[in-house]
Amino acid sequence: MNNQKLIGVDLGGTTIKFAILTQAGDIQQRWSIDTNILDEGSHILPDIVTSINEHLKLYNMSPADFAGIGMGSPGSVDIKAGTVIGAYNLNWKTLQQAKKVIESGTKIPFNIDNDANVAALGERWKGAGENDPDVTFVTLGTGVGGGIIADGELLHGVAGSAGELGHVTVDPVNGYLCTCGKRGCLETVASATGVVRVARDMAEEFAGDSKLKQTLDDGDEISSKIVFDLAKDGDRLALMIVDRVCFYLGLALANVGNLLNPKFIVIGGGVSAAGDFLLKRVDKYFKENTFPNVRETTRLRLATLGNTAGVIGAASLALK
Amino acid sequence: MNNQKLIGVDLGGTTIKFAILTQAGDIQQRWSIDTNILDEGSHILPDIVTSINEHLKLYNMSPADFAGIGMGSPGSVDIKAGTVIGAYNLNWKTLQQAKKVIESGTKIPFNIDNDANVAALGERWKGAGENDPDVTFVTLGTGVGGGIIADGELLHGVAGSAGELGHVTVDPVNGYLCTCGKRGCLETVASATGVVRVARDMAEEFAGDSKLKQTLDDGDEISSKIVFDLAKDGDRLALMIVDRVCFYLGLALANVGNLLNPKFIVIGGGVSAAGDFLLKRVDKYFKENTFPNVRETTRLRLATLGNTAGVIGAASLALK
Repeated sequence: MNNQKLIGVDLGGTTIKFAILTQAGDIQQRWSIDTNILDEGSHILPDIVTSINEHLKLYNMSPADFAGIGMGSPGSVDIKAGTVIGAYNLNWKTLQQAKKVIESGTKIPFNIDNDANVAALGERWKGAGENDPDVTFVTLGTGVGGGIIADGELLHGVAGSAGELGHVTVDPVNGYLCTCGKRGCLETVASATGVVRVARDMAEEFAGDSKLKQTLDDGDEISSKIVFDLAKDGDRLALMIVDRVCFYLGLALANVGNLLNPKFIVIGGGVSAAGDFLLKRVDKYFKENTFPNVRETTRLRLATLGNTAGVIGAASLALK
Repeated sequence: MNNQKLIGVDLGGTTIKFAILTQAGDIQQRWSIDTNILDEGSHILPDIVTSINEHLKLYNMSPADFAGIGMGSPGSVDIKAGTVIGAYNLNWKTLQQAKKVIESGTKIPFNIDNDANVAALGERWKGAGENDPDVTFVTLGTGVGGGIIADGELLHGVAGSAGELGHVTVDPVNGYLCTCGKRGCLETVASATGVVRVARDMAEEFAGDSKLKQTLDDGDEISSKIVFDLAKDGDRLALMIVDRVCFYLGLALANVGNLLNPKFIVIGGGVSAAGDFLLKRVDKYFKENTFPNVRETTRLRLATLGNTAGVIGAASLALK
């Protein structure tokens, strides 16, 4: 390992986060810019190039000081070609030549992967995964995503869809219809919007004393956070909703365990802000649905890096 | 690659199969011996050594002609230490020093893995897996086992339990109790004994014309093969049983697809003798429970190697 640094880029629909890291994964500089999605997102890649070059100048560094740039992107990523397509929150509907544009603009080698995979790499390397060779990551946000590292390698599968924990079927018969077109995906019940959907449905059948029920009856907006906060306060309906969400999440993660027996399954994303309250309940159903050797050796954990998982994991793509 | 040969050993409770293969995976010699499980299975490893040495003499070959020996074993295998424990069909209750005994007895390097993993390697290398880097194998026999090859590597997980497809939970609430202690494992419904269990239960509720129902009412023994054969003949009850078994199998394999997106999921073992009749019905539920990119790129296939998957996969352990 030489002294060259890494650049990590976390490309999101609102901001683009950047960081300069050592090869040991320590962040030395961080900055971010707004994502300009106008004109079909055509400014995004040039903006990234400009921002990197400006900051290199600012820090008195040159391309030779860097082993590479890694980036996490939404959409469908072709990691070999270095291209992205169908990232709708960036207005990228057509094929984007990320690698070509960024390498020619910065003169630094470039690697790319999808955002959930990159966050998985980050949590595995410097977060709750303790750099173990077998770590699965699930992120509970607006949607549910994930990434699987097995035997030290990030898995992609034959068409780049490995690690799509959000589309594991947890309720094949009575499940909600998912945006992907099939029924009963984990995402339909365990994403932030999924929790709200479960809440609305269970509230209809619920008769009894509940602040959450009253909020919904009053026509007020609710959120995943409100449901978890009320559950923590002992609201009966909210507790039932959290129990159902945790049942499905525990079942899906148990089957990840039964298939892959990772050392850690790390839970991140907005919904995971519910913390140990969530973890404890998911773990109950995880243990019910794993067979003994997995139950004893695979552990659920909360993510620890928060927002920086993306830039850290992205930077790790430049290590290869 | 030099001209050295490989030896594959498939250790089972009734017979021990041996084969000599080229490094391209072509079988040149095959033989087998009975498994002597007397005296706590203490004759098994010495018998393997004797049989290998006798056959090398017979073929005028020496240890230097071989790159290595690979073996698939029942029980809990420690692949690094080369030991086995808890292989009850061999009467191996205590730790067995397989690597030590076989290497010192034959003077040939030795590697070992569990039998389902080894069969997965075989089907991947020379069978339905077409040597693709992403292949999952499930075997439907007395139990249900499996093995996962991802990015070209056989997965083991943190404690050797990766690939345990038999213990994927497919019916967490109403499922049968499994020998592993938890409820709703795939093995409880999709193994040969599982199919019979589903048959007995569904027969109790079934009212109508069915030869299978009559057979059970007469107190005659049935088997998974009888159920599938009667289903192929149009027996209404048998068709309902097959449909339920295929639903659970399709659901479990769909979630393998959603998590790993392998090129092929290969179905082997005794129950898979039902052939395309089984495959077509499993595929229906597989497609219902996979999201689009997996549905279009991950394919279910029947195993093609039958009994020889074990020796071929075992031999491939000697390639490393």
